[in-house]
Amino acid sequence: MKFGIQFFPDIGPEEKSAADYWGESLELVDLCDDLGYHHVRTVEHYFHRYGGYSTNPVVFLAAASQRTRKARLITGAILPVFNHPLKVAGEIGMLDAISGGRLEVGFARAFLPHEFRTFGRSLDESRDRFDEGVEQVRRLLEEENVSSDGRFHQFSNVTSLPRPTQAPRPPFWIAATSADQSFAMAGTGGHGLMTFPRDPEGLRARLKIYRDAWRAAGHPGNGQVMIAFHMFCAPTTAEAHSVAGHRIDAYLKAQYDAASDWAEGTTSKDYPTHPQLTETLGKMSFANKLGDGSMWVGTPDEIKGMINFYHDAVGGFELASLQVNFHTMKVKTAEESMRLFAQEIMPEFA
Amino acid sequence: MKFGIQFFPDIGPEEKSAADYWGESLELVDLCDDLGYHHVRTVEHYFHRYGGYSTNPVVFLAAASQRTRKARLITGAILPVFNHPLKVAGEIGMLDAISGGRLEVGFARAFLPHEFRTFGRSLDESRDRFDEGVEQVRRLLEEENVSSDGRFHQFSNVTSLPRPTQAPRPPFWIAATSADQSFAMAGTGGHGLMTFPRDPEGLRARLKIYRDAWRAAGHPGNGQVMIAFHMFCAPTTAEAHSVAGHRIDAYLKAQYDAASDWAEGTTSKDYPTHPQLTETLGKMSFANKLGDGSMWVGTPDEIKGMINFYHDAVGGFELASLQVNFHTMKVKTAEESMRLFAQEIMPEFA
Repeated sequence: MKFGIQFFPDIGPEEKSAADYWGESLELVDLCDDLGYHHVRTVEHYFHRYGGYSTNPVVFLAAASQRTRKARLITGAILPVFNHPLKVAGEIGMLDAISGGRLEVGFARAFLPHEFRTFGRSLDESRDRFDEGVEQVRRLLEEENVSSDGRFHQFSNVTSLPRPTQAPRPPFWIAATSADQSFAMAGTGGHGLMTFPRDPEGLRARLKIYRDAWRAAGHPGNGQVMIAFHMFCAPTTAEAHSVAGHRIDAYLKAQYDAASDWAEGTTSKDYPTHPQLTETLGKMSFANKLGDGSMWVGTPDEIKGMINFYHDAVGGFELASLQVNFHTMKVKTAEESMRLFAQEIMPEFA
Repeated sequence: MKFGIQFFPDIGPEEKSAADYWGESLELVDLCDDLGYHHVRTVEHYFHRYGGYSTNPVVFLAAASQRTRKARLITGAILPVFNHPLKVAGEIGMLDAISGGRLEVGFARAFLPHEFRTFGRSLDESRDRFDEGVEQVRRLLEEENVSSDGRFHQFSNVTSLPRPTQAPRPPFWIAATSADQSFAMAGTGGHGLMTFPRDPEGLRARLKIYRDAWRAAGHPGNGQVMIAFHMFCAPTTAEAHSVAGHRIDAYLKAQYDAASDWAEGTTSKDYPTHPQLTETLGKMSFANKLGDGSMWVGTPDEIKGMINFYHDAVGGFELASLQVNFHTMKVKTAEESMRLFAQEIMPEFA
């Protein structure tokens, strides 16, 4: 199993300035190569403490590329619904060049009604825009003289620059959480699969859909699954829980607040289960999630147990992205946790 | 006078990969703080060797921010016509944070018909899109809960994140080359003025329009003018001309090729003089431009003379952005030129 770090800001100006948040995040990025973390990853969100400090993952990853030599740089994820495919392809080409070919590109459908509303996008166009956007960007990276008469974006005879540094292009990842169709699409397309922890039974079933689709399409191997976990590792259980517990609750509250339209009557054919998922989200807490292996908080031995438990419960995954500096955590505290994890836990899963 | 460096890629995959181009550019960025260069700047262009390796200046500047501690980072320039104002404001907030408040934001109208065509934008909407875009981004950075019912983009009650690190926002620059209206707008708005060298008489008249508008609007001082020059400095005239001459001709040819629609019958009410300007451009060469002070190529003493000549001819300017690694120039050659310029020329203008 490979372990990377994921930056998911869940704070606003009242708690921490963006200059402090990103400055501290880059201090943690400095540790990656030496400690053996496989990747640096960040999100795309807007207008809300839930992710809103990271409006374009490519911008932060360009900075992170200069603080690392080996780590992969992963967008987790770009949202085609809010971006022009010509812009996305151009930025991918730039960052793949600037990083010397270390970029991997995750795409997601987005799921927060407030973001769709502010950009003037319909939730009911979410899947169509996603499918079209990923395909247009794929072609712009792989091919020259590309024409596409899409429903949402049209262009003719375009050779996107810069041409990718990796051949034929940076690896793609597709983010999926609940829709079987997204898991199948990722497998069929030969892309990696990015997801967040959810009930292990449900995830196990969907990862099977992904891997079945992968093999059915004739791709070699069994696909690649990357899951993002909160992680805080400390010498004692009490210290780990006291530092991380209330901060994970603050993260969950920010996520619920950002998604609250789903709890207040918003519906969309493209998100049939989101009202119910959001209701479930509203009941989640550190206390009631700790036992299911989806939040890696504890001593090294406790976390090893959680990793093994969750890995077996979902039928296996290849990469973990660790949220290491969530909410208001101090950078030195996050650094100690990263060091302890690298020293005590990583070797066991190498 | 302050001197910075400007990266304007004018090569395609046949001459130099983007990985090599940006890697070499970052090696030159490494020299900035020690040698006293004031800023790092880059462009936004698409789909053509003329600038097309730099589709989003914010991406490269994010990388450059990690190779410098003091240098200002300047977009030269963002093109609102091809960007959503919500995206631009978010990226400015991110880079201002990541750089610790060192960002300055230049905006331009764009002028290449092929870019407008590929993005499906009308040349005749150029000024309206520019005016609306700059104003929407300005408000998104300065204000909270912004609503705008624009002709091209509409949004309601938006607080853009991250909030800027600099208060109230990073300084703005407006790029202008030929339109009196753009020079006046920059002055009235209290923004800096970015331009390229042109005939000194014409530029002198337009810089007066800018500074008059600046003072008429009641802004303190006299405004700030930044001009981009090709620069190559060597111990002997022969060496300077032999290294830089044919490469400047290649740059001019790339620029002419990219703009060639204007020479082939394209017209637009928003670009009344571009057919004629492009015809003039087609006749430019290193040999016939060297004498007018607009291309700083020569020995240290020769370049000092050119700087003084052009400065006086246009009525003064405050900043120069030096294109130091144009076309296929080797990075070590560009580095030697940057060192010689910093050592022999800069102190005289401090």
